[in-house]
Amino acid sequence: MSKKKNKNAEKLRVMMLGGLYEIGKNLAVIEYGEEIMIVDCGLGFPEEDMPGVDLVIPDITYLEKNVDKITGIVLTHGHEDHIGALPYVLKQISPPVYGTALTIGILEKKLSEHTFDVSPRLIAVNAGDTIQLGNNFSVELINVNHSIADAVCLAIKTPVGTIIHSGDFKIDLTPIESKMMNLTRLGEIGNEGVLLLMCESTNAERPGYTPSECTVGASLDSIFFRNADKRITIATFSSNVHRVQQIINAAEKYGRKVAITGRSMVNVVNVAIRLGYMHAAEGVLIELDEIKKYNPEQLTIVSTGSQGEPMSALHRMAFSEHDKVELNEKDVVIISANAIPGNEKYVNKIINELLHKGVTVLHDAVADVHVSGHACQEELKTMHALTKPKYFMPIHGEYRHLVSHKALAMQMGEKEENIFISEIGKVLEIDSDGARFNGSVPCGKVLVDGYGVGDVGSIVLRDRLHLAEDGIIIVVTALQMDEQLIMSGPDIVSRGFVYVRESEELMTELQQIALEVIDNCFDNGIADFSQIKNKIKDELSKFIYQTTKRRPMILPIIMSV
Amino acid sequence: MSKKKNKNAEKLRVMMLGGLYEIGKNLAVIEYGEEIMIVDCGLGFPEEDMPGVDLVIPDITYLEKNVDKITGIVLTHGHEDHIGALPYVLKQISPPVYGTALTIGILEKKLSEHTFDVSPRLIAVNAGDTIQLGNNFSVELINVNHSIADAVCLAIKTPVGTIIHSGDFKIDLTPIESKMMNLTRLGEIGNEGVLLLMCESTNAERPGYTPSECTVGASLDSIFFRNADKRITIATFSSNVHRVQQIINAAEKYGRKVAITGRSMVNVVNVAIRLGYMHAAEGVLIELDEIKKYNPEQLTIVSTGSQGEPMSALHRMAFSEHDKVELNEKDVVIISANAIPGNEKYVNKIINELLHKGVTVLHDAVADVHVSGHACQEELKTMHALTKPKYFMPIHGEYRHLVSHKALAMQMGEKEENIFISEIGKVLEIDSDGARFNGSVPCGKVLVDGYGVGDVGSIVLRDRLHLAEDGIIIVVTALQMDEQLIMSGPDIVSRGFVYVRESEELMTELQQIALEVIDNCFDNGIADFSQIKNKIKDELSKFIYQTTKRRPMILPIIMSV
Repeated sequence: MSKKKNKNAEKLRVMMLGGLYEIGKNLAVIEYGEEIMIVDCGLGFPEEDMPGVDLVIPDITYLEKNVDKITGIVLTHGHEDHIGALPYVLKQISPPVYGTALTIGILEKKLSEHTFDVSPRLIAVNAGDTIQLGNNFSVELINVNHSIADAVCLAIKTPVGTIIHSGDFKIDLTPIESKMMNLTRLGEIGNEGVLLLMCESTNAERPGYTPSECTVGASLDSIFFRNADKRITIATFSSNVHRVQQIINAAEKYGRKVAITGRSMVNVVNVAIRLGYMHAAEGVLIELDEIKKYNPEQLTIVSTGSQGEPMSALHRMAFSEHDKVELNEKDVVIISANAIPGNEKYVNKIINELLHKGVTVLHDAVADVHVSGHACQEELKTMHALTKPKYFMPIHGEYRHLVSHKALAMQMGEKEENIFISEIGKVLEIDSDGARFNGSVPCGKVLVDGYGVGDVGSIVLRDRLHLAEDGIIIVVTALQMDEQLIMSGPDIVSRGFVYVRESEELMTELQQIALEVIDNCFDNGIADFSQIKNKIKDELSKFIYQTTKRRPMILPIIMSV
Repeated sequence: MSKKKNKNAEKLRVMMLGGLYEIGKNLAVIEYGEEIMIVDCGLGFPEEDMPGVDLVIPDITYLEKNVDKITGIVLTHGHEDHIGALPYVLKQISPPVYGTALTIGILEKKLSEHTFDVSPRLIAVNAGDTIQLGNNFSVELINVNHSIADAVCLAIKTPVGTIIHSGDFKIDLTPIESKMMNLTRLGEIGNEGVLLLMCESTNAERPGYTPSECTVGASLDSIFFRNADKRITIATFSSNVHRVQQIINAAEKYGRKVAITGRSMVNVVNVAIRLGYMHAAEGVLIELDEIKKYNPEQLTIVSTGSQGEPMSALHRMAFSEHDKVELNEKDVVIISANAIPGNEKYVNKIINELLHKGVTVLHDAVADVHVSGHACQEELKTMHALTKPKYFMPIHGEYRHLVSHKALAMQMGEKEENIFISEIGKVLEIDSDGARFNGSVPCGKVLVDGYGVGDVGSIVLRDRLHLAEDGIIIVVTALQMDEQLIMSGPDIVSRGFVYVRESEELMTELQQIALEVIDNCFDNGIADFSQIKNKIKDELSKFIYQTTKRRPMILPIIMSV
């Protein structure tokens, strides 16, 4: 190749709009010439500093600006953090969306709860299929194992070379009713040459291998055997189709019926059964209403709430708020999940409450009732060994996981200068001259609160956090400025500050200070409302901090009458 | 013994005012006849549903009511959750306080920041000593191992029998500069007969043994060896005197100076050195100001912040807000602690930020830099095996831990009917007829917020949570009721709801609705302010929920002019 040809060669641009530094909201953008393709479009959950926020989705300003270039969205699997932003994003852009049958089935159900100007185009494909997107991208879906059925990784052929996007994966040599991850195909593509590996990093700090999903089945079997006289309720992630299948298998073996509770669990089970990803012998699945026809020892209940979510079925059962299930000494509850960081306290509360009721509780600290869906270090190394990438970008993990994954890659002989730890919006540019970061595109978090998408910003959050910390004190007065008269007030109204009935003295003092400030302003000819309000705020803040060491929000309101 | 004598015999009453179901705020009350003694007096930290709250201390109404009966407080060790409520409690009651020298030293420093009407009486004693409290209690202090030096468990002789209170403990066969837990003495007392074992349950779910503190020393040594060219900063719990000693030992061995940062770390190190619990060769400890005189590889910094606390030294270093230490690629940071449940996200943020700066970070997920200070199952079983109690009350743990501890005790052959899982305030009554729960005493949580102790109650918390969730909308108007005139407003002021500049239309609609409600009240002759305010609230709530799916706090204020 001549230097000239190199210089003219088009560049491949790879950027993440989500899926770096945080587990949620995966969104990769791959661009070549006048064409863009997207991998996944997930949502995240709010951090502690985002009170009241329901969901967090990626900022897609860049995609909206380049809407004509977008050839399609390819989904790796049906988890919320990979598909959950689509109900919002497909209102702004509407390229075709490709995924395996279960992924598309789950997505369809989700989209059916929203309305769209342009109907989403959802296209179900199979692992092994290749999708042609525009002129520049051909995407092969390769079967992987994960904590949801029908998950794939992607081999994306571009004019510059092949990108492997791992999606989320583990290597399960004994998977449940599905195929082992297609290591052979990955090895073949590795032999053909891989330009860039984009690989998930969730468990990059964990040595060894993630155990097979079937180990949970063995554990469940023994729990069913040992608790033949009790009702068994199992909470797990609704999307973990293979886990639910293993529960059904155990129930069938021990002659129990299976009832499902929790909206998302009912939804996923319905989709999975309809599409053939889940099987139950006739008569095994019953409606929750039917449980009263059976004795406790004839029943298994599968439930949502494994993260301790306050509105979930398990939470309602634990706190006696479930209208159909009441738990007691005749119950075993299995929490077949791990608590996602931040949820430990919620799960704890449920465990404690259940034990209080006399329920036998089995969870991952005391029984082998959960395995991870993500590759540990030896599996990640297998991915690197098979694909032998020229360049590597660790994705899907916090910064600490990306750094650990980089260290692993270097152990595998990859060169430091070929490993790119990116940032949201940062552009990795690859051409025949090499790979480098070059600029960035607009990016960020969009907060969803109720029906509002993006109307809760940093000022609103700052105010909410301030309000939560020490409450609010409102000073309201009606002034007649021409004659410098206080027509009403100043009145002090507080919420979330102190228990007012026991603090009447303090309230009177605050009122007195506000009155003095206003009088003082009158005396000094200050008639500007914002000046008066600022003075009230300053004096009250100072006094309140001195007396209480608190900093409530202080909101003076002056009415002109 | 005749039946009659039994009936007349005095009863021993044991109750926990803290230290059940939650890790924080340990406080045990032991009562016989007209005398009370207290074990520990700790504080807890606020839960997620207590925004703005600084600390949680036990409600001591029962002790205040029985102040004349109290013979003394005995402390098992100097951790916050065992001594931290004393600065508040000693303002209400002032019995003598006994503890080992380090415990009393740490407490003295803590109390020096508060003022008292009656000066606290602090009495330092030694492990092995016996304290006589009143006529009925004689308390022997027995050396245990724990994550703070000078920790003891208690053998409390009462007229009904001997109580063993474990405090917090582990069995460390190779402790650092202190003695192994006195298993022999516990066995001797066990042979004499133990009426009641009150034993901590923190690690009751964990099988096996907790590793010795010295394993951390070996790990630190190898980290120091491998990082000879870098500065090493180590964050740990300030009270972990033995951990800090091991850091000093490693620094001495590798020819480094040690500087301390973080207020609580400086305090504890000063107390520990003064009392001889910590040793450093001359010239090894330097002031933080002196670090600029040395090269990075000559320095070790010991810091607070192992829980990710936002104001801690480590947090300030990570986020470049520390005025004396700046971290970069030449630094190794060791987080020598585990994240207490609920703090994981804060610790994560620091790790990610440090890695971003190029700092090498070692933490318990990737290196052996921490061991627990609490007994695992085999150690708990050793305690039961040696003391052979007639009755057993698991304490200090969440309900799940108490239940696991009960299961362990039953494995050891203790009878279910002799095991008492108590609740805060519940009274365990023991006499020669047996043991039973009998009634309860006033108890609960007192919230400390700034200078306020107990002035933040459930209504204030509920308001704070509500404010945090969706903010507040204030509707303010000035009415002249005689002539049914709106003199000013209604004005809409919001905080923490939506970004107002982008929601002007919504604000105008809200104003319009409020106006209609007021007009409507005037038309219907409604002149009662609270009625008008309720109507405004109802209409606005309804409209806001329909349009935004949010439920901000709505606060109508009417001024009469």
